[in-house]
Amino acid sequence: MIKMAVMGFGVVGSGTVELFYKNRQKIEKSAGSELDIKYILDIRKFPDSPFADKIIDNVDLIVNDDEVKVVAETMGGVEPAYTFTKRCLENGKSVVTSNKELVAEKGAELLELARQKNVNYFFEASVGGAIPIIRPLHRCLAANDITEVYGILNGTTNFILTRMFEDGMAFEDALALAQKLGYAEKDPTADVEGHDACRKICILASLVFGKHVYPKYVSAKGISSISKEDVEAAAALGCQIKLIGCVKRLEDGKIIPFVSPMLVPDSNPISSVSDVFNAVTVISDGADRSMFYGRGAGKLPTASAVVADMIEAAKHDRTVFSQHWEDSENGDFIADFDAYECKMMVRSNGGVQVLERAVIAEHNETVEAMKADGAEIYSAIPVLE
Amino acid sequence: MIKMAVMGFGVVGSGTVELFYKNRQKIEKSAGSELDIKYILDIRKFPDSPFADKIIDNVDLIVNDDEVKVVAETMGGVEPAYTFTKRCLENGKSVVTSNKELVAEKGAELLELARQKNVNYFFEASVGGAIPIIRPLHRCLAANDITEVYGILNGTTNFILTRMFEDGMAFEDALALAQKLGYAEKDPTADVEGHDACRKICILASLVFGKHVYPKYVSAKGISSISKEDVEAAAALGCQIKLIGCVKRLEDGKIIPFVSPMLVPDSNPISSVSDVFNAVTVISDGADRSMFYGRGAGKLPTASAVVADMIEAAKHDRTVFSQHWEDSENGDFIADFDAYECKMMVRSNGGVQVLERAVIAEHNETVEAMKADGAEIYSAIPVLE
Repeated sequence: MIKMAVMGFGVVGSGTVELFYKNRQKIEKSAGSELDIKYILDIRKFPDSPFADKIIDNVDLIVNDDEVKVVAETMGGVEPAYTFTKRCLENGKSVVTSNKELVAEKGAELLELARQKNVNYFFEASVGGAIPIIRPLHRCLAANDITEVYGILNGTTNFILTRMFEDGMAFEDALALAQKLGYAEKDPTADVEGHDACRKICILASLVFGKHVYPKYVSAKGISSISKEDVEAAAALGCQIKLIGCVKRLEDGKIIPFVSPMLVPDSNPISSVSDVFNAVTVISDGADRSMFYGRGAGKLPTASAVVADMIEAAKHDRTVFSQHWEDSENGDFIADFDAYECKMMVRSNGGVQVLERAVIAEHNETVEAMKADGAEIYSAIPVLE
Repeated sequence: MIKMAVMGFGVVGSGTVELFYKNRQKIEKSAGSELDIKYILDIRKFPDSPFADKIIDNVDLIVNDDEVKVVAETMGGVEPAYTFTKRCLENGKSVVTSNKELVAEKGAELLELARQKNVNYFFEASVGGAIPIIRPLHRCLAANDITEVYGILNGTTNFILTRMFEDGMAFEDALALAQKLGYAEKDPTADVEGHDACRKICILASLVFGKHVYPKYVSAKGISSISKEDVEAAAALGCQIKLIGCVKRLEDGKIIPFVSPMLVPDSNPISSVSDVFNAVTVISDGADRSMFYGRGAGKLPTASAVVADMIEAAKHDRTVFSQHWEDSENGDFIADFDAYECKMMVRSNGGVQVLERAVIAEHNETVEAMKADGAEIYSAIPVLE
């Protein structure tokens, strides 16, 4: 019997506990051993929960209990999740997490600590919710040289853009609807301005290219400036506008990680990824183009990924080395978004035009020149190929 | 240093060797040990191959070499692959395969033999080519109760149907084009009549539901009867016709595995899977709807999956129990296709109509009644929901 703990009994944490007990028999078969959740950590009380007897508010109970081998951290935010995770790893417990903020900020350090302690730090749930993407990337595609990863990494913005495209809604109205349906926070900044997608592309970039990509090195632009007219102009070109998180390796070996609204042609399968669904495309030398699609957030979908990691952690009593990257405080292996090459849709008082393939820096110059010629520029949006 | 062997130096086998040596450094890092391919088995000679010194024509060399721990079987067909695989497993070697025919016919037996010998029999490449689907199903989605798996499992037929849909080609012309481009065999029966997709759905069904589903229990219909007019009628209903392999669990616990052309609504992401690409959708209680997309065949794409399995086999010195199912010679857990519930498009001399959701048996009765009333029935095609 392997004992486990869940830290944080919010949406994801409660989903994790619920899914574990619902499918416990199958989960134990898959893990190859009996499993149980001994503690649930939360500062709140849940007297009416069927799991009330497991709920504790003192992390020491988990950290100091040698019986607990696997801990799921579903708290979110850097602190106190960071401190709690470190203490668990230091005491020889594997930790699995859904916390993209923490992995994006402290991943390299926590992975190194896990390695020293010969335990695991897994984070499948931190990117793409239910979508299996971390494990497929570093295991199923392990034979490949991966050169690019891109996708729709934020469900809230994809819901907004879908409503703008399908129902002709304005950004503000679509955002208000997303808030009403519970898909967007009251303060939607992290989603709408691309910060959430930025953390996720940092995690994917770090995993694929082996060095920690910190959010501060990533050009991240959100969708708050996207207008109904942009969406209509894109549609006339056979495209949808999607918020794309991307990391691409250049020929000189540097990588460009970025988040930006982009025109996605209808021929690209991710153009049909609608509402709160997410999708991640991987380009590699052997498999060519692979895509992984599913629910990017939500209680049980995220729990699906957390519990899968708990199973893996329960199975593996040694560090899994392939899910690891080096720290790299300086970003000298990262190229600026200016060096990214693509077409660009420019919408101005002169109409809509598509600039031929060139680097972003060159497109910016073209736009500046148009302005100098007296044009009023409404928007300039890169095109995904 | 772990020594490996490749049996069969055809398209997939040569791709496996090529991809291994191209990305050897990354592959060894992922496996956590040095790896090399010691033998390549083929009855043909390849004097000009850079790997000529590894090529042998006597399987005994592999079977009796204790240094060889992992064998990739990329021969195809049941014999002699079956005998060779058994001999390797019996001598304590893990075997990985791209051979869907063998896994569909003998999977339970070979998995049991592997378990007895405490080695692994992996088959990621047998379904969906490059698409990671076997491992995601039994590991990444291990926390879920999976109730349905369906997808586009054959690239040849998807190419033909795409050309019929996009270019208005007749079936015969699209097939001739597929043959010209090397996507279809001279004798296209196995692809076009659904036998290939049938083997793949057998493998997926066995893995997900835990009992061997033999091809003889699966209702499999191909696309040779699909006409241009069917494709046009489907398009008018906002659908494409795709060859779908599906297995679904009914409320009584029985499963229905089948292969059939189906109308797929544009709102379903697999409707945009075109040409030789494949996609597999998984429905489960936690993750809800997940989809995996990629190249379903071809030299390097299939090799990508074979080499990933070689890495896993090199890493795991014990049987992986979760990738296992029981033998089940009688099909008492399998329900007939007649019990599958869906809408149905019927095209007759009276025009096109869509029958309301009902079981296939009922649809068949309706069609018979239409015939009795003097209608000429051109086609009756189920609709995917």
